[in-house]
Amino acid sequence: MITIPIEVSARHIHLSRPDFELLFGIGYHLALFKNISQTGQYAAMEKVILENGDKKIENIRIVGPERRETQIELSLTEARQLGLTIPLAVSGDIAQAAKLTIIGPQGQISKNCAIIAQRHIHASLKDAEKYHLHDGQIVSVECGTQRAVIFRQVVVRVRADFVWNLHLDTDEANAAGLQGGETGILII
Amino acid sequence: MITIPIEVSARHIHLSRPDFELLFGIGYHLALFKNISQTGQYAAMEKVILENGDKKIENIRIVGPERRETQIELSLTEARQLGLTIPLAVSGDIAQAAKLTIIGPQGQISKNCAIIAQRHIHASLKDAEKYHLHDGQIVSVECGTQRAVIFRQVVVRVRADFVWNLHLDTDEANAAGLQGGETGILII
Repeated sequence: MITIPIEVSARHIHLSRPDFELLFGIGYHLALFKNISQTGQYAAMEKVILENGDKKIENIRIVGPERRETQIELSLTEARQLGLTIPLAVSGDIAQAAKLTIIGPQGQISKNCAIIAQRHIHASLKDAEKYHLHDGQIVSVECGTQRAVIFRQVVVRVRADFVWNLHLDTDEANAAGLQGGETGILII
Repeated sequence: MITIPIEVSARHIHLSRPDFELLFGIGYHLALFKNISQTGQYAAMEKVILENGDKKIENIRIVGPERRETQIELSLTEARQLGLTIPLAVSGDIAQAAKLTIIGPQGQISKNCAIIAQRHIHASLKDAEKYHLHDGQIVSVECGTQRAVIFRQVVVRVRADFVWNLHLDTDEANAAGLQGGETGILII
């Protein structure tokens, strides 16, 4: 039996350096709030506001370090709150991303960068070898007890520095009665 | 293969006659907004506000007709919005229900009546016979495509006047990318 720790990814934003400077000012740097499980990744102290017309969501946490491209990850519940149709996509793929306005203390930008992240597994090269998994593979994971769910369409992402865990969004976690910190069972 | 229509139950409230009159005034009657799938059940025009301390959710639709006991059905996402721990329970079982304040145009009441409804199947006596199901049976249902999920811990509810369908809450529907109107596959 292959088990995997479950983590819940609440809504967050990754920013490129140019977008970050437009929102926070030139020369500004992110402050560490806390480290998260993936190596070198951290939740920053800084937050932004997302806006679509007259609808907005405040307190969107920035996840650092800066990335090549700005990307916002929301749940379907939050997409509805914003009155937006947001595509499901593998994190990093913003080809079809929905347009949103991002508001920071020093400026705002509108761009096509919002996705609902497809649930995924982070696997290191060693994990992939050990469990006979490959990058892009689609697997299922059984999670939960009182609200047990088998999540299908879980994409495996393999990278040298990844840390073995399953990332669900808040809708998925709530539907399965999960808070994060539980363990799922891989079904290949 | 046994298929079942999927319905999404958004947050709502069922009211007893005494509670209804406390909220809306003596002699007041619900107005029909639209009929819903279960025989004789309807969404009413009337709405209430739910409050827990300084947190509230507005526009909670009343589902009629009146019931013997007042019951509020929320999602885990909404429980979090209200800062409440709300138990998962089979609809009708409010023994462990969480306390909330219900506010209507003519009054307000505080009582232990909020649950997260366990996902369930409505089956008539004929459906139960046809598919060899019994009241209280726990089954699984496979739903969705791009975000396919197998929901385990689905309770079967059998009553003469029930109409064959699967009821999911909004968290469950969003996690599986469902809007309602799709079809699930029963796994017994």
